[in-house]
Amino acid sequence: MNSIMTAPHRFERNTLVRFSHCDPAGIVFFPQYLVMFNNLVEDWVTEGLGISYADLVGRRRIGLPTVSLNCEFRAVSNMGDEVTLGLSVERIGTSSIRLALGCRHGLEERVRVQQVLVTTSLETHRAIPIPDDLRDAMAKFQSR
Amino acid sequence: MNSIMTAPHRFERNTLVRFSHCDPAGIVFFPQYLVMFNNLVEDWVTEGLGISYADLVGRRRIGLPTVSLNCEFRAVSNMGDEVTLGLSVERIGTSSIRLALGCRHGLEERVRVQQVLVTTSLETHRAIPIPDDLRDAMAKFQSR
Amino acid sequence: MNSIMTAPHRFERNTLVRFSHCDPAGIVFFPQYLVMFNNLVEDWVTEGLGISYADLVGRRRIGLPTVSLNCEFRAVSNMGDEVTLGLSVERIGTSSIRLALGCRHGLEERVRVQQVLVTTSLETHRAIPIPDDLRDAMAKFQSR
Amino acid sequence: MNSIMTAPHRFERNTLVRFSHCDPAGIVFFPQYLVMFNNLVEDWVTEGLGISYADLVGRRRIGLPTVSLNCEFRAVSNMGDEVTLGLSVERIGTSSIRLALGCRHGLEERVRVQQVLVTTSLETHRAIPIPDDLRDAMAKFQSR
Repeated sequence: MNSIMTAPHRFERNTLVRFSHCDPAGIVFFPQYLVMFNNLVEDWVTEGLGISYADLVGRRRIGLPTVSLNCEFRAVSNMGDEVTLGLSVERIGTSSIRLALGCRHGLEERVRVQQVLVTTSLETHRAIPIPDDLRDAMAKFQSR
Repeated sequence: MNSIMTAPHRFERNTLVRFSHCDPAGIVFFPQYLVMFNNLVEDWVTEGLGISYADLVGRRRIGLPTVSLNCEFRAVSNMGDEVTLGLSVERIGTSSIRLALGCRHGLEERVRVQQVLVTTSLETHRAIPIPDDLRDAMAKFQSR
Repeated sequence: MNSIMTAPHRFERNTLVRFSHCDPAGIVFFPQYLVMFNNLVEDWVTEGLGISYADLVGRRRIGLPTVSLNCEFRAVSNMGDEVTLGLSVERIGTSSIRLALGCRHGLEERVRVQQVLVTTSLETHRAIPIPDDLRDAMAKFQSR
Repeated sequence: MNSIMTAPHRFERNTLVRFSHCDPAGIVFFPQYLVMFNNLVEDWVTEGLGISYADLVGRRRIGLPTVSLNCEFRAVSNMGDEVTLGLSVERIGTSSIRLALGCRHGLEERVRVQQVLVTTSLETHRAIPIPDDLRDAMAKFQSR
């Protein structure tokens, strides 16, 4: 199931696989990967796009819920592994953003994810057009 | 994004959307759905297949890790919703099981998931053939 | 570290120790006990007090944050254990409620908790007097 | 409920309050603090004591379960807060370690915890004497 990464992502962060991520099999419990990737999206918005995620959600009341998610788990991660999480933007629509996400350990690919987010109003939970500041800042993270 | 369910699943359980499942937007944080579905698989093995999940993992040291996962989140779930989680078996391979999973609230579909599990040895984390007792018991949960 | 329970609690619910509660040591990861107890408090409010917890938090915007917590972990719980969680009210103040909580497996005590909650406004996060309907309903869960 | 910190802890790490830590009230869900503190203990063992936590648990099969926990939640933390978590050793016994833990935001104290861990064999879940390398390394984190 192992495989070699090719293209690096446009935004990357290292993270430690912790005791609290692991299950009785001693490996990452897969929903915990999705929490890690959610944290990565949060860091990308705040640090990569330069738009405070807490402010976006808390003050501007704009949500980024996930509408679709495809994951391939290619190799297990063990407690203590220092892994690299990466993110690239694949497509920017009117109110949706398709991201490619990945987790690797050195050159070994562990997880590959495609995730579609939509921008919503947190008052109505309905889709709204991607705000201009988000849209402008995202362009430089597009893959190619 | 709403939609109407058609075929019911072969194994269903009701569950309450709790405070601990919800995020600052007041709706289910999506990785929590995957914890709920993992609990459903656990109940299906123990109650549906009649094979203790705790014994399978703890004593027999057989794991059921996820190798692929496709999710569509079609409508939000709010704290206090009583939702129905369902499971059907789509395909049984040599060491892999493809499940269809769903979450609905009454007739409103909330989440649709396709998940592939493999049976592994928890000593080596390598795939092993599906044990005969699991394979035999699963047949009656196949969709059609 | 084992011990025998004496008085039963006024409100009890059984729950299964799941794969998702357990850590690489194969036993309940202790923060997961606190999630279980939070779920118990939620069930107690909704079913025991007859006041919808979701409505209390979501519509009435009244929170029940924890201000203090004392836990003794007396024996480990393993995946697959069916445990009994219990709750009694020890003291009702102006805006605070002191609960005794416990987790047992048959007669073996696993966890003993004393937890103080306060009723707050979710707009200001400041303490407010316990609403009359909550106060009246709680009286019958007082220990002695 | 606010208060001013006095003595700093011997081991400190900053961490971000994330979306995934927060509840429908928009503040940290208290069991998530205990996950954060567990991560801090893990970092302290690995970085502060110079003993790999993953190796301790995974290869040496030594656990550090919590036997008692006292928490005071003094002020709420909001999504986006950069908080400082700290740890000091209060007492080292034969097989138990009493820690003082804290979470502060600048000079505002948020959470104060006293936690007793024991060293156990992960084969038997019984207490074992604190290994010499752990004991020796812990001394310099004692408060006073």
